[in-house]
Amino acid sequence: MRLILVAGSTATAEIDGISAAGADDDLLVHTPGADAELLTYGDVVRAPEMPTSPSGCPTPALVTRAARELVGFDVVAVDGGLRVPTGAPTVTVGARPGDDIRERDPVPSAPGSFEAARQYGRKLPDEEVVLGETVPGGTTTALGVLRALGEEWSVSSSLPENPLTLKEEVVADGLEASGLRPGDAANEPKTAVRRVGDPVLAVVSGLTVGALESGTRVVLGGGTQMIAAAALVRHAGVEAPLSLATTAYVADSVPDLRVAAAELDLGLTVSDPGFDAVDHTGLSGYAAGVAKEGAGMGGALALADRAGVLNDVAATTLESIARLSAHNGP
Amino acid sequence: MRLILVAGSTATAEIDGISAAGADDDLLVHTPGADAELLTYGDVVRAPEMPTSPSGCPTPALVTRAARELVGFDVVAVDGGLRVPTGAPTVTVGARPGDDIRERDPVPSAPGSFEAARQYGRKLPDEEVVLGETVPGGTTTALGVLRALGEEWSVSSSLPENPLTLKEEVVADGLEASGLRPGDAANEPKTAVRRVGDPVLAVVSGLTVGALESGTRVVLGGGTQMIAAAALVRHAGVEAPLSLATTAYVADSVPDLRVAAAELDLGLTVSDPGFDAVDHTGLSGYAAGVAKEGAGMGGALALADRAGVLNDVAATTLESIARLSAHNGP
Repeated sequence: MRLILVAGSTATAEIDGISAAGADDDLLVHTPGADAELLTYGDVVRAPEMPTSPSGCPTPALVTRAARELVGFDVVAVDGGLRVPTGAPTVTVGARPGDDIRERDPVPSAPGSFEAARQYGRKLPDEEVVLGETVPGGTTTALGVLRALGEEWSVSSSLPENPLTLKEEVVADGLEASGLRPGDAANEPKTAVRRVGDPVLAVVSGLTVGALESGTRVVLGGGTQMIAAAALVRHAGVEAPLSLATTAYVADSVPDLRVAAAELDLGLTVSDPGFDAVDHTGLSGYAAGVAKEGAGMGGALALADRAGVLNDVAATTLESIARLSAHNGP
Repeated sequence: MRLILVAGSTATAEIDGISAAGADDDLLVHTPGADAELLTYGDVVRAPEMPTSPSGCPTPALVTRAARELVGFDVVAVDGGLRVPTGAPTVTVGARPGDDIRERDPVPSAPGSFEAARQYGRKLPDEEVVLGETVPGGTTTALGVLRALGEEWSVSSSLPENPLTLKEEVVADGLEASGLRPGDAANEPKTAVRRVGDPVLAVVSGLTVGALESGTRVVLGGGTQMIAAAALVRHAGVEAPLSLATTAYVADSVPDLRVAAAELDLGLTVSDPGFDAVDHTGLSGYAAGVAKEGAGMGGALALADRAGVLNDVAATTLESIARLSAHNGP
């Protein structure tokens, strides 16, 4: 079993109020690489510190790593447009950092990296892969992709109060800058992701299409960003079985998720790791809906559930937080 | 436990008669990436096929992978100057493909990548790492490094008849092109590896120095190329404990290996995986001294021995060869 984390960036994250994936803007640029390092090594290596949201929620990569320590699955990171070098090993598919979607052509690398990721996905020898993403600002670009494809669902947020009005405004500006109306990129996934998306969505959807084409089962581990990835796959004309794995916290607090999963014909796996009972404000924040998803967390929890160790993930995550805070703390 | 494979290239391999790490020159350029893919996925992904020597010996990466399947250690590949893209995830330290050592300045990336690898090695959270290398032509560049440092030991070969006279000539030409006499780069490891070495040796030695500086134990898994890496580390003034792990076939057929290990103050671990009793010409070729070492094989066998599964490596390797031959074969 292999979890593939696609890590990248979009300048859309720098818009005030959009993202909480990092305590401040200077650290936010390191978040995707730090997540890949945490999954690979159980610690940061080149990144300056463990990513934490402004409200103190630790990155979901720690949960994915805890599940990995318990289950023993392999991890591969793919460079989905990283802005700074990471100490994690990454596969290269030609993705470049994405620009602000209010620019006319923010992700010119999208069509090429979609195809390179598709070729890579076709060659994977695995029977099944779980895909994760880490890209600050990614729910806004996911919303952009959904609107460009003509889908009506909404997206969640890494912030306690989802700045949905701001996101809709940014997406409206992005569509206008690209000369697109909602739905104009229906059945044209590469156009949607190039004009109002981010490089990670291009790679995740290309990888999914390629893996499915060669008979590898794919589980998308995540929330509304993975809904956007699945929409791109369906708009590419791929009807093969595909599933989404997320947490109970996301599934219960984002009403559109179940609707979208059904309309996109996605199998849905929902796992509850019991973070509500945990004596750690940051981690229990997930159960309170403060942080949401990312770094393949939902997929990793599904694997932990299959292996019968879901109830051990919280304790293992807390041990990691304690250890990392001790030697990387302020 | 983590095995770190440094994969790269030197145009020195293209000199007629130098290397057997690949059935012919067109495939040889893919060997390091293919080795990294085999370790990561158990199969080739972007590389065209499983590397095999002209006499039919399968790449030692298959043995390392078999040990990994039995023991479960993590693998990280580092880009030590790959010429073609690999489907394996790699860490970037700025290494570029090496030129023929008969050029004046064949590895200009060596000092920078030595330092970047050193920084990376310092940050590794592991208590112990095993390092491996894969670089066709690497025994010739190892000989170059040894001579530049003023060391007298000889090197082995991936060919049944070691073309040692040719290697000595190439090294003599390389030293002359760089304006160096033997020993002129003593205590100047970056000069030695830049002028008559290869980018993989720069990364392996830098990584070793950094890991040792931060208290991580290092096992060099390999034969005479790892002797050259150890010599670079010692000539950098690092006296910390360091060990070499190789096969009984190398230790028994390369007399200088034990001498060099002793003079460099290296702990020596020798493992015998019993390939002499195996009914497969390619694999038993290792026992007959036809192929030698590489891709961390000696280190992986040491880990298998520690885990009590050394005697299972041969059978697991044969299963891999059968599976890979079935779907990648001619």
